[in-house]
Amino acid sequence: MIKTDILIIGAGPTGLFAVFEAGLLKLKCHLIDALPQAGGQCSEIYPKKPIYDIPGFPEVLAGDLVDNLMEQIKPFQPGFTLGERADTLEKLEDGSFIVTTNKGTKHHAPIVAIAGGLGSFEPRKPQLDNLAKFEDNGVAYIIRDPEVYRNKKVLIAGGGDSALDWSIFLAEVASEVTLVHRRNEFRGALDSVEKVQELKNLGKINLITPAEVIGLEGAKSLETVTVRKNGENEEEIKIPVDNFIPLFGLSPKLGPIADWGLEIEKNAIKVDNTLDYQTNIPGVYAIGDVNTYPGKLKLILCGFHEATLMCQSAYQRIFPDKKYVMKYTTVGGVTGFDGSKKEAPKAVVKSIT
Amino acid sequence: MIKTDILIIGAGPTGLFAVFEAGLLKLKCHLIDALPQAGGQCSEIYPKKPIYDIPGFPEVLAGDLVDNLMEQIKPFQPGFTLGERADTLEKLEDGSFIVTTNKGTKHHAPIVAIAGGLGSFEPRKPQLDNLAKFEDNGVAYIIRDPEVYRNKKVLIAGGGDSALDWSIFLAEVASEVTLVHRRNEFRGALDSVEKVQELKNLGKINLITPAEVIGLEGAKSLETVTVRKNGENEEEIKIPVDNFIPLFGLSPKLGPIADWGLEIEKNAIKVDNTLDYQTNIPGVYAIGDVNTYPGKLKLILCGFHEATLMCQSAYQRIFPDKKYVMKYTTVGGVTGFDGSKKEAPKAVVKSIT
Ligand SMILES: Cc1cc2nc3c(=O)[nH]c(=O)nc-3n(C[C@H](O)[C@H](O)[C@H](O)COP(=O)(O)OP(=O)(O)OC[C@H]3O[C@@H](n4cnc5c(N)ncnc54)[C@H](O)[C@@H]3O)c2cc1C
Ligand SMILES: Cc1cc2nc3c(=O)[nH]c(=O)nc-3n(C[C@H](O)[C@H](O)[C@H](O)COP(=O)(O)OP(=O)(O)OC[C@H]3O[C@@H](n4cnc5c(N)ncnc54)[C@H](O)[C@@H]3O)c2cc1C
Repeated sequence: MIKTDILIIGAGPTGLFAVFEAGLLKLKCHLIDALPQAGGQCSEIYPKKPIYDIPGFPEVLAGDLVDNLMEQIKPFQPGFTLGERADTLEKLEDGSFIVTTNKGTKHHAPIVAIAGGLGSFEPRKPQLDNLAKFEDNGVAYIIRDPEVYRNKKVLIAGGGDSALDWSIFLAEVASEVTLVHRRNEFRGALDSVEKVQELKNLGKINLITPAEVIGLEGAKSLETVTVRKNGENEEEIKIPVDNFIPLFGLSPKLGPIADWGLEIEKNAIKVDNTLDYQTNIPGVYAIGDVNTYPGKLKLILCGFHEATLMCQSAYQRIFPDKKYVMKYTTVGGVTGFDGSKKEAPKAVVKSIT
Repeated sequence: MIKTDILIIGAGPTGLFAVFEAGLLKLKCHLIDALPQAGGQCSEIYPKKPIYDIPGFPEVLAGDLVDNLMEQIKPFQPGFTLGERADTLEKLEDGSFIVTTNKGTKHHAPIVAIAGGLGSFEPRKPQLDNLAKFEDNGVAYIIRDPEVYRNKKVLIAGGGDSALDWSIFLAEVASEVTLVHRRNEFRGALDSVEKVQELKNLGKINLITPAEVIGLEGAKSLETVTVRKNGENEEEIKIPVDNFIPLFGLSPKLGPIADWGLEIEKNAIKVDNTLDYQTNIPGVYAIGDVNTYPGKLKLILCGFHEATLMCQSAYQRIFPDKKYVMKYTTVGGVTGFDGSKKEAPKAVVKSIT
């Protein structure tokens, strides 16, 4: 059982910044995310694209923003349960909560902050009869650890940035990379498309287009993939592989959270924006893209504000008798749970003679 | 008469960021500030100190944050009326407003956003009988343009950062700099204190401590200042000067805004935080430190959020019939009023052969 003060569901920019604001109040956080990495939409959908409306950044790459947030929260040593989806919420008699993931990991906290964005990112899967049989036995939709593919025969399917970028990356790691796409045209950053062309010319990526994967075979784990080449010379080929990685994109689904008894409106969680972004379940907050209220804007900077107010309210719930007096970080500094201390240089009082 | 879409009173971080959000909606802004420079408290009180709780910045100097915001809003070409205090608000029949400053400058806009922070920064003045006579005739409380003091004889009073830093700066500009402080001890950044000591040793700053200015003399403009040296060898000295600059700090005062018919609570303006941070006067908003609502935190990041929601509401007031569809900056880019365009590199669709 993982225990913490504020259990945050969703490690997007909103959830990450909540760790910082909670830390200033000496509250510890643990984050759960279905993705293998932190950063939410910023990391998963557009890490290399610039954002122009983060206050104080005339321009910042989404991935760099996430890196900065990770650096900013480091002193507060957040815990992470990554690659797991929060599936159930249970309220205990003492008012605290247990959240269990699809892999059975249990988390216990007096406060739950749902920062689930547009929902848990779930892979779009190809329609193949025995797909489920090979999941975790050769088929994966998300690359968690590229080292798993060292010296393996890998077949990637897809025509977007993920398919391009992972083909490029694994060309140096795997013993064989085959890229299958149902069109000849790929859609992605120009340099990625050009790099794949180059690796194909060098024989380092085996390209099959326009084509589709139509069958998976193997006794226990995956052994071969059947690919149908479309177009003029239609033919079916069986390719021996260790791994099949369909990269057709991840689409966010509110999913199980929708069944937790929360008030849902327009696929988002209704919260009390007049005070603290609390939901209809006391002790459960919803912040960032996942919530809705009159005038709501699904912007990163709004999530930051919501996270900040939420932490103040959480503090009051946990310590109903304490009066928290806010101190500016410039004045009070930042004292990490790791013993680190950031502090403005103090003014001196010194005579001049 | 200066005309604009949103007239912003206060050029602190909140007012500055409002320019950006308004710009995304193609609304023009003009800012009024009593200070000679933009940045509010950040520029005036702690420009060289680090802030740790701006999301995405593990650490940023307050002055750098302001510089970044100025850079971010540049494409939207805001107008500035600096060094003037907004004194009166008049509502015209068509629902628009005229705001007039203490120097008589008039501004006309359909929307007024008060981002006045803790109030208009007003200098703390020394108690001297004929002080008012010499204001603008040798006495100044804020240094707007240091070139005014080139080859002049200047006497600065004060014992904090401003007094230290301006003494250092003007030592290279003025023909004579005298620094008077009622104690021997100065309070400021260590390197400033040490620099003043060094300039004093070199004879470039004439230091008189512990001492006080007790009289000002001059036919029309200031000619001499009488200083009483305290302590063991008490004596009075008359010092010929062109300028006397008492730097005893600026303290913010809500001031005239308190008389505009706005609902005031705890020295701040009550706003509707359930929707758009509008005040009890329709068309007048209050954002940032200057407003209050249940759970309000006087933090920079909260001002950013409030400014953003305010701009959406202002847009609806100005164009009641238009439906604004928000576009992410990453997707839509930023199109400046100066014709500039920032844009994420587009994905290509390209075949690999
Ligand atoms: C292409 C694009 C461009 C954008 N441009 C901008 C822009 O310029 N400016 C701007 O402000 N915003 C922009 N956005 C929106 C911005 O990315 C979102 O507002 C922001 O990511 C929301 O942050 P969040 O932390 O609330 O949620 P997300 O970033 O969506 O993170 C939520 C996380 O929660 C996880 N999660 C959800 N449910 C569960 C569960 N049950 N169990 C485990 N994990 C779960 C998800 O996997 C996800 O990682 C853009 C979005 C896109 C897609
Ligand atoms: C020492 C110190 C440390 C701080 N540290 C932090 C920190 O770590 N994190 C944080 O988030 N915040 C911090 N703050 C608070 C932060 O500076 C404020 O929240 C922020 O400046 C508020 O911005 P604003 O734009 O709303 O108002 P302000 O910065 O106060 O700007 C308001 C401006 O309006 C002008 N004005 C007001 N009335 C009028 C008028 N009638 N006519 C013309 N001009 C007018 C004023 O002159 C001023 O320039 C700190 C403050 C101080 C003093």
